[in-house]
Amino acid sequence: MRIDIISVMPELLESPFSHSILKRAKTKGLLEVNLHHLRDYSTQKQKQVDDYQFGGGAGMVMMVEPLVNAIESLQKEVTYDEIIYLTPDGKTLNQRIANTLSLKGNLLMICGHYKGIDERIREHYVTLEISIGDYVLSGGELAAAVLVDSIGRLLPGVLNDETSALFDSFQDDLLAPPVYTRPEEFRGWKVPEVLLSGDHRKIEDWRHEQALKRTQERRPDLL
Amino acid sequence: MRIDIISVMPELLESPFSHSILKRAKTKGLLEVNLHHLRDYSTQKQKQVDDYQFGGGAGMVMMVEPLVNAIESLQKEVTYDEIIYLTPDGKTLNQRIANTLSLKGNLLMICGHYKGIDERIREHYVTLEISIGDYVLSGGELAAAVLVDSIGRLLPGVLNDETSALFDSFQDDLLAPPVYTRPEEFRGWKVPEVLLSGDHRKIEDWRHEQALKRTQERRPDLL
Repeated sequence: MRIDIISVMPELLESPFSHSILKRAKTKGLLEVNLHHLRDYSTQKQKQVDDYQFGGGAGMVMMVEPLVNAIESLQKEVTYDEIIYLTPDGKTLNQRIANTLSLKGNLLMICGHYKGIDERIREHYVTLEISIGDYVLSGGELAAAVLVDSIGRLLPGVLNDETSALFDSFQDDLLAPPVYTRPEEFRGWKVPEVLLSGDHRKIEDWRHEQALKRTQERRPDLL
Repeated sequence: MRIDIISVMPELLESPFSHSILKRAKTKGLLEVNLHHLRDYSTQKQKQVDDYQFGGGAGMVMMVEPLVNAIESLQKEVTYDEIIYLTPDGKTLNQRIANTLSLKGNLLMICGHYKGIDERIREHYVTLEISIGDYVLSGGELAAAVLVDSIGRLLPGVLNDETSALFDSFQDDLLAPPVYTRPEEFRGWKVPEVLLSGDHRKIEDWRHEQALKRTQERRPDLL
């Protein structure tokens, strides 16, 4: 999979993509992530990429032209399955969307900053608008990092143990059950006995029960 | 505001906290973010912080003891308003929660990794569990970055223009209206005329109408 990201602040994304799962995905050749600095596509002397919004009001808007230049220049190299704009008014990301996107070949992501991007880019280029949740961030960069991470870990071969992702929260519309590790007792706080029983059938039943209970208590909307 | 973050991979968080809004918040002395490496609190020779889960199954679990050591050592310095665990089965983050948390003084955030943290930490230390959305990430680090960003930009004095955050999506339960900037016309794609009219009353009305329309189309659940 190839992911291109256009941003006015690509340096913000350096460390999330150089560690952990995403680093492993890149090292194994399963995922290629390229950061593109929007300023490189400005045709203006000052490398300007934003301007005041028409109609007045606080906050700058990212200009049409540098974005068009960036998108069209990348499109000469790659055909994208989706051109994604990260925005709080997009479709709310969930595990199903992450699963679907993990099956694509090439994705382009545009990170807004300031007040957002000129609407004409959304009308004429963007094919999918994604929000990572009902809150506002200072830019689309962290949202892109979250989206790439949620997709990247689903690529076959990225996680060490392929069964691991299958038991995560949401994959079966249930939250995950509680987990425990050594020691069995700490300050009098004990691990549930069933987990020490060695009876795999019982353990499976307990976990399913706990997952169901937790989902009922915390997220009845998922059931 | 002071935010402490406990993580097994604090290096992942370096670049998000050294740029843009969060850098500005730190430079202005409005926000202090401290990253703590969980391994520094391991009492074992190999600096081990995770172990196999009781009851079997894929994925490692973060151990009780290093986390207790980290939390209690920090608590000697600071009294926390909330000890937050970032987890997909937590309370779903929204703008209201971000607003509430932005009024606190000291927050401690725990980033899970692998299969999560030992349940006993959640029972005995954590006061608030937050999910940034219904999807799974490879760790709590990006979730913590998102939470810090959503809170940090709300601190008075962080954004250059104080009115800017007030007009964001969700602050009034409406999505933001479309925005445009120069040029007025690009490849025949024009800016809506009302925005060029100079009639502030009309512009306000148009924006409210558009915000309402967009919310009705995309997120009727917010209305």
